[in-house]
Amino acid sequence: MFFHKKELQFHAKPDKPDPVYAKQLQEILGGQFGEISVAMQYLFQGWNTRGNEKYKDLILDTGTEEIGHVEMIATMIARLLDKAPVNEQENAAKDPVIGAIMGGMNPHHAIVSGLGAMPESSTGVPWNAGYIVASGNLLADFRANLNAESQGRLQVARLYEMTDDRGVKDMLSFLLARDTMHQNQWIAAIKELEEKEGVIVPSTVPAEYEATEFSHKLYNFSEGEDSAKGMWAEGTAPDGKKFEYEEMPVIYGEKPVLEPAPPYMHSTPPHDPQ
Amino acid sequence: MFFHKKELQFHAKPDKPDPVYAKQLQEILGGQFGEISVAMQYLFQGWNTRGNEKYKDLILDTGTEEIGHVEMIATMIARLLDKAPVNEQENAAKDPVIGAIMGGMNPHHAIVSGLGAMPESSTGVPWNAGYIVASGNLLADFRANLNAESQGRLQVARLYEMTDDRGVKDMLSFLLARDTMHQNQWIAAIKELEEKEGVIVPSTVPAEYEATEFSHKLYNFSEGEDSAKGMWAEGTAPDGKKFEYEEMPVIYGEKPVLEPAPPYMHSTPPHDPQ
Amino acid sequence: MFFHKKELQFHAKPDKPDPVYAKQLQEILGGQFGEISVAMQYLFQGWNTRGNEKYKDLILDTGTEEIGHVEMIATMIARLLDKAPVNEQENAAKDPVIGAIMGGMNPHHAIVSGLGAMPESSTGVPWNAGYIVASGNLLADFRANLNAESQGRLQVARLYEMTDDRGVKDMLSFLLARDTMHQNQWIAAIKELEEKEGVIVPSTVPAEYEATEFSHKLYNFSEGEDSAKGMWAEGTAPDGKKFEYEEMPVIYGEKPVLEPAPPYMHSTPPHDPQ
Amino acid sequence: MFFHKKELQFHAKPDKPDPVYAKQLQEILGGQFGEISVAMQYLFQGWNTRGNEKYKDLILDTGTEEIGHVEMIATMIARLLDKAPVNEQENAAKDPVIGAIMGGMNPHHAIVSGLGAMPESSTGVPWNAGYIVASGNLLADFRANLNAESQGRLQVARLYEMTDDRGVKDMLSFLLARDTMHQNQWIAAIKELEEKEGVIVPSTVPAEYEATEFSHKLYNFSEGEDSAKGMWAEGTAPDGKKFEYEEMPVIYGEKPVLEPAPPYMHSTPPHDPQ
Amino acid sequence: MFFHKKELQFHAKPDKPDPVYAKQLQEILGGQFGEISVAMQYLFQGWNTRGNEKYKDLILDTGTEEIGHVEMIATMIARLLDKAPVNEQENAAKDPVIGAIMGGMNPHHAIVSGLGAMPESSTGVPWNAGYIVASGNLLADFRANLNAESQGRLQVARLYEMTDDRGVKDMLSFLLARDTMHQNQWIAAIKELEEKEGVIVPSTVPAEYEATEFSHKLYNFSEGEDSAKGMWAEGTAPDGKKFEYEEMPVIYGEKPVLEPAPPYMHSTPPHDPQ
Amino acid sequence: MFFHKKELQFHAKPDKPDPVYAKQLQEILGGQFGEISVAMQYLFQGWNTRGNEKYKDLILDTGTEEIGHVEMIATMIARLLDKAPVNEQENAAKDPVIGAIMGGMNPHHAIVSGLGAMPESSTGVPWNAGYIVASGNLLADFRANLNAESQGRLQVARLYEMTDDRGVKDMLSFLLARDTMHQNQWIAAIKELEEKEGVIVPSTVPAEYEATEFSHKLYNFSEGEDSAKGMWAEGTAPDGKKFEYEEMPVIYGEKPVLEPAPPYMHSTPPHDPQ
Repeated sequence: MFFHKKELQFHAKPDKPDPVYAKQLQEILGGQFGEISVAMQYLFQGWNTRGNEKYKDLILDTGTEEIGHVEMIATMIARLLDKAPVNEQENAAKDPVIGAIMGGMNPHHAIVSGLGAMPESSTGVPWNAGYIVASGNLLADFRANLNAESQGRLQVARLYEMTDDRGVKDMLSFLLARDTMHQNQWIAAIKELEEKEGVIVPSTVPAEYEATEFSHKLYNFSEGEDSAKGMWAEGTAPDGKKFEYEEMPVIYGEKPVLEPAPPYMHSTPPHDPQ
Repeated sequence: MFFHKKELQFHAKPDKPDPVYAKQLQEILGGQFGEISVAMQYLFQGWNTRGNEKYKDLILDTGTEEIGHVEMIATMIARLLDKAPVNEQENAAKDPVIGAIMGGMNPHHAIVSGLGAMPESSTGVPWNAGYIVASGNLLADFRANLNAESQGRLQVARLYEMTDDRGVKDMLSFLLARDTMHQNQWIAAIKELEEKEGVIVPSTVPAEYEATEFSHKLYNFSEGEDSAKGMWAEGTAPDGKKFEYEEMPVIYGEKPVLEPAPPYMHSTPPHDPQ
Repeated sequence: MFFHKKELQFHAKPDKPDPVYAKQLQEILGGQFGEISVAMQYLFQGWNTRGNEKYKDLILDTGTEEIGHVEMIATMIARLLDKAPVNEQENAAKDPVIGAIMGGMNPHHAIVSGLGAMPESSTGVPWNAGYIVASGNLLADFRANLNAESQGRLQVARLYEMTDDRGVKDMLSFLLARDTMHQNQWIAAIKELEEKEGVIVPSTVPAEYEATEFSHKLYNFSEGEDSAKGMWAEGTAPDGKKFEYEEMPVIYGEKPVLEPAPPYMHSTPPHDPQ
Repeated sequence: MFFHKKELQFHAKPDKPDPVYAKQLQEILGGQFGEISVAMQYLFQGWNTRGNEKYKDLILDTGTEEIGHVEMIATMIARLLDKAPVNEQENAAKDPVIGAIMGGMNPHHAIVSGLGAMPESSTGVPWNAGYIVASGNLLADFRANLNAESQGRLQVARLYEMTDDRGVKDMLSFLLARDTMHQNQWIAAIKELEEKEGVIVPSTVPAEYEATEFSHKLYNFSEGEDSAKGMWAEGTAPDGKKFEYEEMPVIYGEKPVLEPAPPYMHSTPPHDPQ
Repeated sequence: MFFHKKELQFHAKPDKPDPVYAKQLQEILGGQFGEISVAMQYLFQGWNTRGNEKYKDLILDTGTEEIGHVEMIATMIARLLDKAPVNEQENAAKDPVIGAIMGGMNPHHAIVSGLGAMPESSTGVPWNAGYIVASGNLLADFRANLNAESQGRLQVARLYEMTDDRGVKDMLSFLLARDTMHQNQWIAAIKELEEKEGVIVPSTVPAEYEATEFSHKLYNFSEGEDSAKGMWAEGTAPDGKKFEYEEMPVIYGEKPVLEPAPPYMHSTPPHDPQ
Repeated sequence: MFFHKKELQFHAKPDKPDPVYAKQLQEILGGQFGEISVAMQYLFQGWNTRGNEKYKDLILDTGTEEIGHVEMIATMIARLLDKAPVNEQENAAKDPVIGAIMGGMNPHHAIVSGLGAMPESSTGVPWNAGYIVASGNLLADFRANLNAESQGRLQVARLYEMTDDRGVKDMLSFLLARDTMHQNQWIAAIKELEEKEGVIVPSTVPAEYEATEFSHKLYNFSEGEDSAKGMWAEGTAPDGKKFEYEEMPVIYGEKPVLEPAPPYMHSTPPHDPQ
């Protein structure tokens, strides 16, 4: 069950409106690695956790914080859109700066939301749940979380470079910090689980399920041997076994020849010469 | 530039057809973490890599291998669909086993592909590129890759439990092994990059961009303090600073009050009492 | 800013597992009119509201409650999936009841989420933000909300008929009640706004923008005159003007003839006879 | 069965081309509440109506008209694209007005459709059927229709403000009028059905299905009590019962604790301290 | 402008309900090559045609017919769903035939549409406009149309094999016939345009735009030389030039080495050894 | 199994960066008819081919080549993005040329991929597998392939007109040539199959499945008789039968009246007057 406090977790006030930047900022709201993604990913992970109350609580703490980040960015976008000159057609035709604003805005900000944030990416694609994962395996999911916070912080850093509005930069400096924390926390949690379970996910697969002779070979499918120089091609692998390098991958399968389809499928009958 | 060899990397022959399992197996072909996802993710990462030839080669080696995995699973699905009883309506009405097969199949396997594999998930949703990432930051992307191989191996393990066909299990044992290798290799590459750059992505953000007073605080947004017991709440963080725990998150923002929309937006005018 | 309490708003405990029903119940979690939709719709409406604090508070109250409903249904789905017999291949082949369960389940529940809820519909399509609206015009949006609660309660009623599990029905009886409340509240709020602004959205369009001679005509584009008998074809319209019925719609436009495309478009050049 | 007349229902001729506006106008063609949406929504509602011939005829009359509106807007877009300067690269580099046109256009209009309308929104997202609803319950669906016509007219009004082309405004004035009619007609039809069935959808749910003690309570999940002042918090509800306000929502559920997953799921085993 | 006649173009009455088949039949209503696709594809092609009135009329004739086909199939699906046993939970548990029906149905048919057709495919994926094309080049588009009618008739033939209901087969026999006509008509129209313009689309590309030394070479990128035996590898090509076969494709490009990203991108800096 | 060579098939070097054109070029990488589409379409067709080794080899040859085309275009896009001025906010405000670049770029190129190619269209919509087809019927699929190569070459031609960069035009001249080859080869293969099987797909439908009295009639559903003048309205059809023209389509069906829904559906009960 959730409760809402009216105050924002942190300030979300630009120095001045900027409708083109509002479009760009949508990426960290409703893009693949935006705040909707992390909020939904953590909440579903938390709700699906079976036992492991310590981890469940950590996940839900963080997921709940992220809904508040969606709120902050939505507020910032609404303010960046204040008084966007969408009705200045005459000026747009004459003044290239206004023309560029009109051309560079997300049209949804004018037509659909009436100068409000949209649940979509910087290219105007609606957020969808195909971005997130909650697998029931916490080590797998903490790696997903570390990835999400890494991609997210990278995108915030790039957006930081793309504006010189002090108010916007102020909010982004807070998001950079929270993403630092979240990277730190998922690394710590991953380390704890790896120490308990080992580094290969899932840890519970019996050895007899796996064709272990293929578990440590780097295959050189791409001409050129730059990759042979890495620590992934020789020496001890993270799971304690030895890496091997195979310069020319051995073929274990055969050319597949499929049975003809039955007539009721109306596929092409075999025209092969007899 | 790519070349194709007719042989499969490994066998893909079931002992007998099983159209319901063919539907389930689609998940690791065209689902969020299926082989299309890793193939496309690695190829785009490789093509977008700027410098760093050693990493670029590793990524392209692996991406090229993964196209071959798509091929193996597609072949397996086609064979699991051999002679699916889609034209046995009369029997289906009388024989519940045939009825369950008809009801449990993916209808696309009969109607659209004519007993062939589809580029879609186990629920019949077409694969889409919103699943993948190639960010230009290799540490971020290697974390994405480690996640993909972890989720992927978990799904293979679950599918292994859901069949007793020896031929299918044989192919899955190979995939389990390759996912072990790929987890190992991305862990090794991540470690190498973390040693060069530090653990927080991106490593190049100047300190003055970040509100560092918020970079190590765990906020307790979810009632209950189970999460306070973890190594993410106290002690040294992975980046070398100290974690802090904040039982009741301090509010730094204020209640946002937005400006009324301009009249040309035709939004609701303020009806607030004066 | 949001806070989470560990308790559910209401019980979410089935009497026994039922994996096929778990698939069906996904509709009101992650379908077009599921709880994710209303939660996200209300939150974005609230965050984008400019002034009108009374309405904004009502919207955010309700949106915050709905996140808790997502949580309840996710919990129920996880429990309906307890011990789903996904590894009983041998039994499935022999026992049609187990076979039907395997065929009737959402494969994601086994392979992707590990017996947890998915953010998707009953057909396994990921939730997407194209389902929701926050337009900045409250009367328009309250009508969207009344529709969402009407469709939602209808779907809950149908799901109520499709199970005889007392624990499931108990939770659904609560959701039916909350949807009754939410229909009531949006009807009340709509009435209040209509009294202030009139019934046609948006109320602020000047008369000279509109070709008012077409604003009250019912056109009979579909052969047969059943529709002429309704109160929408004669008498006073809700906005106070008179309805008219036009048995054979008058044509006001002309046959459109488009200019040929310029050569640099490489479209088909005009082959029309001269 | 449908027939086509070559003439448009109303004029669709701009005074002059405007490729940037053509992109924006796509919203009411192929966006969430564009004309494709209402056409498809009404047609599916009509085809699925069981009995109730009077309503069915009204729905099909309107749906058939809407296909004609798609046609009008498609024609207008094609004309707004006449001779778009997509081949003037040299001028674009020098002349910021041409540069802004090139940057502000939908690239599909040049590359994909060859200066024709696209079945997509103003951000270039293809129309999809997740936007529409036909539930079999007419009161629910008429509310969906009223919402669609309200959002649609709001978007037309905003687009009206964003151009000063008389020809475009002329067509939009006709669309404003038809949306007025359609709002009027759905309000009238809703009123008729509410008088027959009551205001809560669906009207056929037996009282014993519903936990009626929760059917009229406004819960204050969002700190601050502005919402307590509304007519939805006290007095008579639209369904004739009494509204109640609950300042601090009572908890009826308990903290959910889920069973561990079975081993064949390979989820994280419980690491909880004993 | 469109008009609707109440009668169907052809009968759409099954002998008896069959909810599992109703799910499968959705493919030719709302799947990639279903009737919605051809209706929308032809209408957009017609509306976007510039000049060429003879072709435009043919396209609109056919597009208008196809809306009527959507109507026929929607009606058939509604009737196949009559009295679907969605409320017979007790029987479902005991009777495997009812269990298989429940498991094999599209849940949307019960929960969302109330026993009506849905605008979606046989796997429950909403129709989207990414399936269709209207390019402004009629020869290109007539090839798209011939493909759509070929795939469509193939799917109808497969569905014909999957039922023994006489009423359903009757409607499908009509659709098979109309798809025969439409294949015939597009072949005829293609032939006419090819005689005017040549076989390569678009015909208007000046020779100097094209690197014609690569315009007739078959490259053997896939090991094995079966493809060398075809009429595409030697002899006269359809455009009158000579085909050539290249056993080992010559490389014309070089290994791409990209510039490092600028620092403000926060991508991985070059770690290459100097 | 696939292998990768580091060299590109052909040069992919622009004379100078052009971030706005990079956005437009995405269409032939990740749009509906981009190179990802043809690569994936051909590979799935090849893998699903049953027998018919000659065709299978041709398909896989071509599919393998197309992955290399994805690589060329991705490389070109990365280079067009070199040093995009995304951090020049101050200049953007003053200099309309920089402003237009910022507004006209795909924001993903800066924020998500760090100046790399994205697997998406020119409007920023992720590629999805709903674009492709592999039906098991080769004649149907070769028509799909001919369409894809026709649309693809048309788009390349348009993009050729939209730039004056010699390096870009050079690569496009190669793609124009390869699309010429691929149109030629599919036409040749279609001709070969049509000679074996006849022109109507699928060729295996027994005459008694089809209502052949409707197989050659052109129905005039669109007022005006321009279409009656074509070779599709009289004379010999491609399949050897006679075309007929029907000026006023005869109705064979009846007005559909559906049964009321059962009460457990909670649809609108019949309110029809008795």
